[in-house]
Amino acid sequence: MVELIVKKRNGQELNRDEYATIIDGFLSGKIPDYQISAFLMAVYFKGMSNKETASLTDIMMRSGDLIDLSEIKGVKVDKHSTGGVGDKTTLVLGPLVAAAGVPVAKMSGRGLGHTGGTLDKMEAISGLSVDMTWQEFVEKIKKHGIAVCGQSANLVPADKKLYALRDVTGTVENESLIASSVMSKKLACGADAIVIDIKVGHGAFMKTVEEAEKLAHIMLGIGKQMKRKVIAVITSMQEPLGFAVGNSLEVKEAIDTLKGHGPKDLTELCLELGSHMLILGEVSKNRDEAKDTLKHLISSGIAFDKFKELVASQKGDVSEVDDTNLLPNAQFKVSYKSKTAGFINELNALNIGLASAKLGAGRKTKESKIDLGAGILLKKKIGDFVHKDDELAVLYSNNNTFFAKAIKLMDLAYTFSEIKPAKNQIILKTIV
Amino acid sequence: MVELIVKKRNGQELNRDEYATIIDGFLSGKIPDYQISAFLMAVYFKGMSNKETASLTDIMMRSGDLIDLSEIKGVKVDKHSTGGVGDKTTLVLGPLVAAAGVPVAKMSGRGLGHTGGTLDKMEAISGLSVDMTWQEFVEKIKKHGIAVCGQSANLVPADKKLYALRDVTGTVENESLIASSVMSKKLACGADAIVIDIKVGHGAFMKTVEEAEKLAHIMLGIGKQMKRKVIAVITSMQEPLGFAVGNSLEVKEAIDTLKGHGPKDLTELCLELGSHMLILGEVSKNRDEAKDTLKHLISSGIAFDKFKELVASQKGDVSEVDDTNLLPNAQFKVSYKSKTAGFINELNALNIGLASAKLGAGRKTKESKIDLGAGILLKKKIGDFVHKDDELAVLYSNNNTFFAKAIKLMDLAYTFSEIKPAKNQIILKTIV
Repeated sequence: MVELIVKKRNGQELNRDEYATIIDGFLSGKIPDYQISAFLMAVYFKGMSNKETASLTDIMMRSGDLIDLSEIKGVKVDKHSTGGVGDKTTLVLGPLVAAAGVPVAKMSGRGLGHTGGTLDKMEAISGLSVDMTWQEFVEKIKKHGIAVCGQSANLVPADKKLYALRDVTGTVENESLIASSVMSKKLACGADAIVIDIKVGHGAFMKTVEEAEKLAHIMLGIGKQMKRKVIAVITSMQEPLGFAVGNSLEVKEAIDTLKGHGPKDLTELCLELGSHMLILGEVSKNRDEAKDTLKHLISSGIAFDKFKELVASQKGDVSEVDDTNLLPNAQFKVSYKSKTAGFINELNALNIGLASAKLGAGRKTKESKIDLGAGILLKKKIGDFVHKDDELAVLYSNNNTFFAKAIKLMDLAYTFSEIKPAKNQIILKTIV
Repeated sequence: MVELIVKKRNGQELNRDEYATIIDGFLSGKIPDYQISAFLMAVYFKGMSNKETASLTDIMMRSGDLIDLSEIKGVKVDKHSTGGVGDKTTLVLGPLVAAAGVPVAKMSGRGLGHTGGTLDKMEAISGLSVDMTWQEFVEKIKKHGIAVCGQSANLVPADKKLYALRDVTGTVENESLIASSVMSKKLACGADAIVIDIKVGHGAFMKTVEEAEKLAHIMLGIGKQMKRKVIAVITSMQEPLGFAVGNSLEVKEAIDTLKGHGPKDLTELCLELGSHMLILGEVSKNRDEAKDTLKHLISSGIAFDKFKELVASQKGDVSEVDDTNLLPNAQFKVSYKSKTAGFINELNALNIGLASAKLGAGRKTKESKIDLGAGILLKKKIGDFVHKDDELAVLYSNNNTFFAKAIKLMDLAYTFSEIKPAKNQIILKTIV
């Protein structure tokens, strides 16, 4: 192993067998953590070639269960987001794309830190369960075209263990390691094609479009080596997506969007990602046709019906979907007002995400309980003009003592200008 | 700790308290090895400033026993060599400098891999013991002006633990880490001033004069911060030093040198390093005067007498010093002859060191036993002309089966040329 560390440290390429040695040794405990972490730091400085990244991805993918979706007809297209604030895209996109005939076998995660998770949002609907056997999962997709569940414990154990080590050794921030982590999981889940939504901005992991492009190209490279179609869409996470941040609040906004009257940015993003998925899923010939299909599914109510079908199939209370006032709510709310007049110049997604988490909507650790009714409903976004004392947002929580700290974070989120700034552009770049 | 790793990874300077946190946490086990190794790899790529290196050195130095030599009168000048092949300098320099009135409190190490160690060479003399109590050590120096012992188990434990980790994580080759390792040990041993012999070439750790200069400047920087005088002499380790490689053989050559008829390169090196030590030790005013003093101590027999005094004081058999044929010898010897005619162009010290180790003179692991009589006696050196079948060297061992592999390594050590190459220059540069 010392030789492999030195090889990487000196900038040489390692072959597939060498990566297999490293990962097998790491998982079996034959190679100690202190050698793996030194290797990871060498990777941080010297990077990995596309070939190396694909080798690592493939070896990690094979470290645990490989999901076999071959029983399900059609091209299975998965979507992955690198994570952001107010990102309820999957709740809209899943039923929408399923309604168009693309099978949606969705394994999702939970929220941590300032970002939310699809499973938590789904569970805001009373009774809804994301726990099911593998057979139930496949049966639901066959019958309803869609199912959403948590990841199996034995899905890519190598990534779980490696990420835990990276997290405590300052080796998270490397594009090749990030790409192989994401791609190994998506590929183990049995996706034939993948649309990656790479978020950029204050509330995202990637801070610049350049970084995001680098990551996109690495992911496309892995797809090429592993013969899966991959499309990366780089999107903005400067301000939160839509107006709602927090679990119940986001379910409401997702339902609004499925009904055709959601926020402009969220709707645009869903049509953009969805149109790629329809083409990859071979149900549309081109982007215009795909977007028309999706718009029709929304305006006709078919997409919303598919959402209700999904909720019912996973034992959720459909009456809460029909009347979103019945969703878990918050006992306390505070109106957050502008202290100044001007155009909103910055609406920092990270601070909003942290404020929402502080209100109870997020988890500090994996074991924390979350308040499904807590969160923030924005009233204005970047480029909007506000007078002094105009309402900028409403804060929700079931714990009255959480507001003070959340408000401090809100104060940090906003800057104002006298000149009207451009509205935040949601789609920044597409890499195919 | 993650923050400290990321700080170093991003190229920022850490302060003394932060290094103390790292070393204390490492020794107590509060900071796991996998974080330390990631930190070390970040240091490998981002380096450490002079201030950081001095902080680390000081903290490591204080991690164990601090030797107090204040009972011994005079300026205590230590000498350190970065290690090479045939390097018996301490055996000559110790008695020589002690004879001049500079107290020599020498804590030495053992050989490992292709390099030898002073303790092993001393022990080639029957009965000689390097084990003594601290009080015995100080008493011997007070009485005889010199004593040689092993390092206390609790001398710089931080360096022992850190080096063990560096050794298995590809993080040995960093000048700042090397410098702090060497200097923390020398300073913990109570030296007032230090002469560092930095070896450069095939048989040394440093391969170029530039690398050696970098190391020298870092060591001088540490000395400056810690208020100790440090002089670095960069010397050649392209070919072995002198003609003898192996424990008994080297003792013989050291005695020859103390008597005034040693090899030219070894004699020159001892006069060079010794003259610096006499000036630092405040017994000579300038280099010329110092060299004259040393030459007189050799020609008058005083230096050799001091060596006998040292041997006797450490219970060694002085009769072996008077008649070196009585030293442990080898049952078998093989004459190694030239396969070609020409000038010796290369006489690779690493290969000679490895061949000698293979004959039994070296250790594979710290626990290996060594054959004190084994080794290589060179007959020719770089620049010498040889005819075909001329004897290049004699190989010695007490195990007849070791010769075949050693000879293969010998074959790799030599290249010949038709044009006479320059003799190997021993003193390359002095950094003060």
